[in-house]
Amino acid sequence: MKEITFITGNEHKLREAIEILGVNIQQKSIDLPEIQSVELKPVIEAKLKGAYEILQKPVIVEDVGFFSESLNGLPGALIKWFIETLGRDGIVKILEPFDNKKVTVVCAVGYTEDGETIHVFEGKVNGIVVPKRGESGFGFDPIFEPEGHSKTFAEMSAEEKNAISHRGRAFEKFKEFLEKNNIG
Amino acid sequence: MKEITFITGNEHKLREAIEILGVNIQQKSIDLPEIQSVELKPVIEAKLKGAYEILQKPVIVEDVGFFSESLNGLPGALIKWFIETLGRDGIVKILEPFDNKKVTVVCAVGYTEDGETIHVFEGKVNGIVVPKRGESGFGFDPIFEPEGHSKTFAEMSAEEKNAISHRGRAFEKFKEFLEKNNIG
Repeated sequence: MKEITFITGNEHKLREAIEILGVNIQQKSIDLPEIQSVELKPVIEAKLKGAYEILQKPVIVEDVGFFSESLNGLPGALIKWFIETLGRDGIVKILEPFDNKKVTVVCAVGYTEDGETIHVFEGKVNGIVVPKRGESGFGFDPIFEPEGHSKTFAEMSAEEKNAISHRGRAFEKFKEFLEKNNIG
Repeated sequence: MKEITFITGNEHKLREAIEILGVNIQQKSIDLPEIQSVELKPVIEAKLKGAYEILQKPVIVEDVGFFSESLNGLPGALIKWFIETLGRDGIVKILEPFDNKKVTVVCAVGYTEDGETIHVFEGKVNGIVVPKRGESGFGFDPIFEPEGHSKTFAEMSAEEKNAISHRGRAFEKFKEFLEKNNIG
């Protein structure tokens, strides 16, 4: 079995990945430079290359984007800067002038075995931006209400959220890839 | 005299730098990765290190930020992504819910001789965000009206704009540094 290392400082993400993939993966917390981009793919590619340069073995990285229809995709991969500067209330506020509150939350999982060939698997969840509701969760969770649900991510239990999770969907695709290629 | 290379693809910026510094500088267009940050300094540092790694001689890089008071500094160094996705009208629109339209335009000029010691010089111009006016200029020029003026950057002649330019102010500070240290 190939040894795969997931670059993350987040134990919860590691556990979710192991549960879905059904294989053991290593964890390493490396502070990788994130390049400027609204799209996730360039960010993932740079992270994978950075991580492979250091580890020289198969690595997984992930990143999340928050793509507002009215803002033509912004903030996308830049969501963390919007949370840090504007905060959740600020994100709701800049969307006030727009009737369309639709947003797509995307998790991209990147994988490389050799630092050259790069695979990216995306999981998407559509929803709308709403004024903050709920206490649990982090990041944009309290202002994101997924389509077909009346709760925000922050109002859901971990189980409810994981059942419709963008991250779960991305890792499911990655699992299919690993199985098809007899990796893991 | 030390040979200094300005990493820019923009002939106009090169001419402005040479005029202010009063010394000849080389130009090179290198596509440097820009790291994610609202603040300019981390972006400048990464650019300088990237450029020095390639050239192994003294280099200048520059970057511009657009810091809105109401958005707690956003977009800052991420302005180019706001222009690309939202456009100028979109930037005006997301500020609609805020009475405070104040914005500070900052140019940061970075310099390193050895790839280790890094100097950053900033030039700032305060102003407000206004609905698009004027045809000349690029980027945020048509929606930026500097304090004490009734024209946007895009309504000014090149001379008018250069006289109050954030870039000019940053290069003036860099010039003082070069003179004080007998460089150039």
